[in-house]
Amino acid sequence: MSAPLIDKYRKMATFDWRKLKAAVEGEEHVRLKAEVVAKMKSEPIFHRDYRVLSREEHREVVHQRWKKIVEWGLFKDPYSDLENFHALTETLEAYDQGTSARLFLHGNVFGAAVKSMGTERHKELVEKIENNEVCISIRDSAHSHSATHVVVYAQLHVDGKNEGLHGFVIQVRCPRSFQTLPGITIGDMGSKPGCWQGVENGWMEFKNHRAPLSALLNKGCDITPDGKYVTSFKSASEKQSVSLGTLSVGRLGIIAKGMMACTFASTIAIRYSVARRQFGPEKGVENEVPVLEYPLQQYRLFPYLSAAICIRIFQKTFVERFTEYMMRVMMGEKSEELSEFSKEVHALSSGAKPVATWLGVESLGEARKACGGHGFLHMSRLNTLRDDNDPSQTFEGENFMILQQTSNILLGKVRSLGSIDTPMSTMSFLNKNPSKFSSWSSNPVDDVLSAYRYLAYHLLQMTASDANKLKNSGKNAFEVRNEIQVHRAVNLSIAYTEHTMIDWVQKFLEDVEDSTVKNVLQKVLNLFSLFLLERHLATLYITGYASGGKFGEELREKLRLAVAEIKPESMALVDSIAPDDFILHSALGASDGRAYDHIMEEFRKYTNEQPRWVCDLAQFLQKRSQHAKL
Amino acid sequence: MSAPLIDKYRKMATFDWRKLKAAVEGEEHVRLKAEVVAKMKSEPIFHRDYRVLSREEHREVVHQRWKKIVEWGLFKDPYSDLENFHALTETLEAYDQGTSARLFLHGNVFGAAVKSMGTERHKELVEKIENNEVCISIRDSAHSHSATHVVVYAQLHVDGKNEGLHGFVIQVRCPRSFQTLPGITIGDMGSKPGCWQGVENGWMEFKNHRAPLSALLNKGCDITPDGKYVTSFKSASEKQSVSLGTLSVGRLGIIAKGMMACTFASTIAIRYSVARRQFGPEKGVENEVPVLEYPLQQYRLFPYLSAAICIRIFQKTFVERFTEYMMRVMMGEKSEELSEFSKEVHALSSGAKPVATWLGVESLGEARKACGGHGFLHMSRLNTLRDDNDPSQTFEGENFMILQQTSNILLGKVRSLGSIDTPMSTMSFLNKNPSKFSSWSSNPVDDVLSAYRYLAYHLLQMTASDANKLKNSGKNAFEVRNEIQVHRAVNLSIAYTEHTMIDWVQKFLEDVEDSTVKNVLQKVLNLFSLFLLERHLATLYITGYASGGKFGEELREKLRLAVAEIKPESMALVDSIAPDDFILHSALGASDGRAYDHIMEEFRKYTNEQPRWVCDLAQFLQKRSQHAKL
Repeated sequence: MSAPLIDKYRKMATFDWRKLKAAVEGEEHVRLKAEVVAKMKSEPIFHRDYRVLSREEHREVVHQRWKKIVEWGLFKDPYSDLENFHALTETLEAYDQGTSARLFLHGNVFGAAVKSMGTERHKELVEKIENNEVCISIRDSAHSHSATHVVVYAQLHVDGKNEGLHGFVIQVRCPRSFQTLPGITIGDMGSKPGCWQGVENGWMEFKNHRAPLSALLNKGCDITPDGKYVTSFKSASEKQSVSLGTLSVGRLGIIAKGMMACTFASTIAIRYSVARRQFGPEKGVENEVPVLEYPLQQYRLFPYLSAAICIRIFQKTFVERFTEYMMRVMMGEKSEELSEFSKEVHALSSGAKPVATWLGVESLGEARKACGGHGFLHMSRLNTLRDDNDPSQTFEGENFMILQQTSNILLGKVRSLGSIDTPMSTMSFLNKNPSKFSSWSSNPVDDVLSAYRYLAYHLLQMTASDANKLKNSGKNAFEVRNEIQVHRAVNLSIAYTEHTMIDWVQKFLEDVEDSTVKNVLQKVLNLFSLFLLERHLATLYITGYASGGKFGEELREKLRLAVAEIKPESMALVDSIAPDDFILHSALGASDGRAYDHIMEEFRKYTNEQPRWVCDLAQFLQKRSQHAKL
Repeated sequence: MSAPLIDKYRKMATFDWRKLKAAVEGEEHVRLKAEVVAKMKSEPIFHRDYRVLSREEHREVVHQRWKKIVEWGLFKDPYSDLENFHALTETLEAYDQGTSARLFLHGNVFGAAVKSMGTERHKELVEKIENNEVCISIRDSAHSHSATHVVVYAQLHVDGKNEGLHGFVIQVRCPRSFQTLPGITIGDMGSKPGCWQGVENGWMEFKNHRAPLSALLNKGCDITPDGKYVTSFKSASEKQSVSLGTLSVGRLGIIAKGMMACTFASTIAIRYSVARRQFGPEKGVENEVPVLEYPLQQYRLFPYLSAAICIRIFQKTFVERFTEYMMRVMMGEKSEELSEFSKEVHALSSGAKPVATWLGVESLGEARKACGGHGFLHMSRLNTLRDDNDPSQTFEGENFMILQQTSNILLGKVRSLGSIDTPMSTMSFLNKNPSKFSSWSSNPVDDVLSAYRYLAYHLLQMTASDANKLKNSGKNAFEVRNEIQVHRAVNLSIAYTEHTMIDWVQKFLEDVEDSTVKNVLQKVLNLFSLFLLERHLATLYITGYASGGKFGEELREKLRLAVAEIKPESMALVDSIAPDDFILHSALGASDGRAYDHIMEEFRKYTNEQPRWVCDLAQFLQKRSQHAKL
C-alpha cells in the first residue's frame, strides 16, 4: 500500500501518466520492457540485495546473469528486431550497466566490428560470435577472464611500409581450456568503482605472437598471396566516411545512459522528497512539510526530471535518423549526400554524448545531496549509480575531446554560411544572421531557440575569427585548434547541440495527439530549455544578444516559474519515467513512497552485530582503565 | 628516480617550493607532519594496497589503526597543544578520513560536548573519555559496534512541560561485555561508499530505558531534588549564542576537507597530465605532447590547484580568529561584542563550508575526467576520494540549508547598513554603496574584490526587497524565507563568503617576505579570484555592475591569462601542496612522475587469473557449439 502523502501528490497531476509514457516511449516499447522485467523477476539469479559484492562475487554473478540472458535467446541482431532490442537494452541498462556491457559489447559492438570490417572468410567466426560459442572482446576493454577472441586495431606494416590503422580479429585463448595462446599475456586492470567492478576490463600483451593472415579484417583491403597490400578505398577520407558512422552507434547508446541517469536521479530524489519532512510554518513534528515543497528543492531537482524526458525524446528521434542513415550505408550507397549525412550524425553525436552524460552525472550528484545524509547510504543506489555513470563521461573519448569533433565540423562550414544544407537540417539556422533580443513571445521555447541561434552563430564567428588570427600570427594547425577551445569552440559545440535537442523535442510535441499529455510535455520542455539556456546567460551578454540587467532577470524569473509549474505534475511525471521497483532497486525511491519503512527494514538486518574486533576493543579499554588506576 | 619529463616541468618554476610551503603552512607544521608520516610509515598496520576491503575488513583495520594512534599518545586536547593537534589532524585526514573520524569524533567532538555542557558530576566520565577508557558517540552517528556512551539531544519534559532541547550523556553498553543495556537496541546503517564503509555509523532505539538524572548535561540548567526545572540562561537567545560557537568547530574542520580534496585532485591530475602524452603538431608517438600542454586541460585543473592553496590560507586564518573567539568564550566573557563575534563566526563558517566542500567535490570530478579512463581505476584514488568527500556536502547540514544561516545573518544587518561593525570586519564593506565597473586596474584581485562588493551589496538589497514584498503580500515568515532562496539569498551567501576568502588571502600575502614566493602566490590568488568571480558573471550583468559584452569578454581573457601564467609554476606548486607519496597513495599521482610504471606494476598483479566461473563459461560455450552442430 502506498503512503497517503505520495498519493496526494499523484492526484495533483492534470494528466494520466500511462498515456504520457505511451506517447513518449511508444506502447509496444512499454509492453516489451514489462515482459523483460517479468522474466527477470521470475529468475532468482536476477534478485539482489543491498550488499556490496567483492570483485570475485560481482563478476561471477554478472557471468551467471549473462548466461541466463543468452539462454533465453532474447538477444538478437538489432536490425532484425529493433523493438525487442531496445526493450532489452533499456531494461538491462537500468538494471545493471555491467551486465548490459558484457552482453552488448561482446555480441553487438565487437561482433558488429568483425561483421562490418570482415569478409566471407570471417563468416564462420561471425556465426560463432552470434551463437555465443566464443567470447569476443576488444583490446582496449579486453575481457580479462572470458575473452577467447579480440578485435585489435593496429598499424599494418607490409614490406616495411606502414599502411595505417587496420582491424584484426585474433584468437587469444583456447575456448576449451581457456589457456592463452603462445606469445599472449592477459591480465586484469584491478578494482573499479560501481558496476564496473563486475566487468573484467583487462590488458593484453603480444610478444612475438604469430596470427594467420585471416586475422586481417579485409573488407576494402587485403594482402595478395604474393604479399602485396591492396585497397579498394580511393582515399583515406572515403575510408573514414564509413567508420564515422560506426563511432556513433556507441555514442547513441551513451546518450541513453545520460537519460537513464537523469531518470534514476529524479525518480529517487523526488519520491524521497515527499517522504522526507522538515520544518514548517509552525513548530512541531506534525507541522513539518515534505521537502519537495521548498522552491529551492524543486529548483534543484525538476530540471533533471525534464532532462530525463527530453533527452529520451531527442535520443529516440536521433536513433530513427541514424537507423535511416545506417540502412543507406548497408545498402552500399556512396553519395555526396550520404557522406554529408555521416558527418552531421558524427557532429551531433559528438556533441550530444557530452551534453547528456554531463547532465546525467550532475543529476546524480544533485539528487544525492538533495536527499541529505540518507542519500549517501548504499541502499539509496545514488552513489552506485554515480559510479556507474561517471565513466560515461570518458567512454569513446573524453567529453571535451569529442566536443572538438563537433566544432571542427561546424568550423568547416563557416565559408558556406548562407547555403548550408545538411540531411538533418541541424545546421541550417546558421545561414541567417540572427537578430538580437527584442521582446519575449508567448512561447518560452521559441524564445530559447532564438537565443540559441544567436549564440551558436556568434560563437561560430568568434571561434573562426580567433582561429584566423592565431594562424596569421604563425601558429600551426595543432596549436590553433588547442587555443580556440576555452570559452569558444567548447561553447559553440554545446550551443549547437542543445539547440538541436530542444528543436527536435519541440517538433516531436507537435505530433502528440492527447492534449493533456501535450500540455504537460510542453511544461517539461519549457523548463528543460530555460534551464539549459540560463547556463549561457553570461555568454549571451558577451555576444551581445541582450544588454541591461532586465533580460537576465526575466530569464531567471521565467525559469523559476517553469520550475513551479512542474510541481503539481512532478509525481505523475516521475511515475511515467520510473523503472519498475525491481529494476530501480532503491530504498529511498520505491513507488509506494514508504522510504523510511524500507530504510528501517534494511537497518534492522544489522541489529546487534558483534564483529570479532569488538573483543579486542573491550580488552583495550579495560587495559587503559587499569593503567589509569595505577 | 623521477621521470625526466616531470623534472623538466619542475625546473620551469621561478621559486623554491619548500620556501612556499613553509610560508603557507609554517615551518613547525611542516616538520610535525613529517614526523607523523614517518611514525605511520614505520608501522605495518598503516601500510595499504589498492585492494577494495569488505565492510568487515575495513572496520577492523580502522579499529587497529585507531588503537595504534591512541597508544602513541599523539592525540591530545587541541587547546593544550594546537600545533601537534593540527599536524596529526591533517595527516590523518589525508591518509584516511574514516580513521580520522573515528579518532576525532570520539575523543574531540563528543568528548567536547560532554565537557562543555556538563558539570562537576561529569568530571569522571570526561577523564575516562580523554583517557580512552570508554567510547563515546553521538546519536546521529552512533558508532554501531564500539560505542559505550552516547550524547543524545532530546526534548526534556518535566512535570508535563516541554523545556526544549537538552543534551544528555547516556551509557548504552557495558564496556566489558559490550552488551547493550536494557531497553536499548543498536544497529548498523549498512554499506556506505568510500572510507565511510570503515566507519560504523549506526542507529539506536530507546524503549522504556531509564537513565539516571546525572545523564542530563546540566551546565546552566538542572532539575532540583524536588523535581523542578531550573535554568540560569536568561533567554533562549543567550543559550544559543554559546552553542553557535560549538557548531563552527565542525565546520572549520570540514572546510579543511574541501581544501584537502582540491589538494589531492590537482596533485594527482597535474602530475598524471605530464606523464600522459597525446597527439602533437606532427604525427608519430615521439611527437606527442604531455596533455598538460593543452590550454583546456590547464583551464580545467589549475583553478583547483589555486583553490587548494587559497582555501588553506583562508582556513588557517579563520582557525586563528576562531581560537581567539573560543578563548574568550572559555574565559566566561559575556559581552555584546562577543555575541556579535559568535554570529559573525557562524555566518562565515556556514558560508565557507559549502563553498569549500563544493569546490572540493567538483575538483575530484574534474580531475577524474581530465585523467581519462585511467582516472577511473581504483588505484588512481580519485574515485575513492570523491566518495570520501561527497558527504562533506551534507555533513553538519546540507550545504544549501546552512547557507541560509549566512544570508539570515546578513539580512538582519540590512537596517544598520552604513554602521555595520563586526569583530572580524567581514561585513563592513556593505556600509558603502559600491560603484559600478569603470575600468580595470593593474591588480586583478582588487578588481575582483570591487566586483564582489558590488555583487554582495546588491544581492543583499534585492533579497531584502523581495522578502518585504512577499511579507506585504501576506506570506508567513517560513514561506518568505523559502521563496527568497533561488537566485537571491543563495548567491548572496556565496558572494559574501568568497569576498571574505579572497580578501583574507590577499591580506596574508602582504606579510609574505620572500619576494619570489610572494610573486607566485599572487599569481595563484589572481587565478583563484578570477575563477570564482567568473561564475557570477551573469549575476554581475543582472545587478548592473557592467553592461556591454566587453566587460565579460575581458574578464574571461584575464582568467585565461591567469591560467596560462600558472603553467610554468604548476609542478612546483603541486610539490608544495602534495602529501607524501605514502599518504597520497595514488598510482597516477606519485612524485616520481612514473604513472605508467606504477599502473603496469599494479596491473601485473592480476596476470592470468582464472576465476572458478571460467570453467562454467568454457562448458557453456562448448554446449552452444555442440548444439549448433546438431
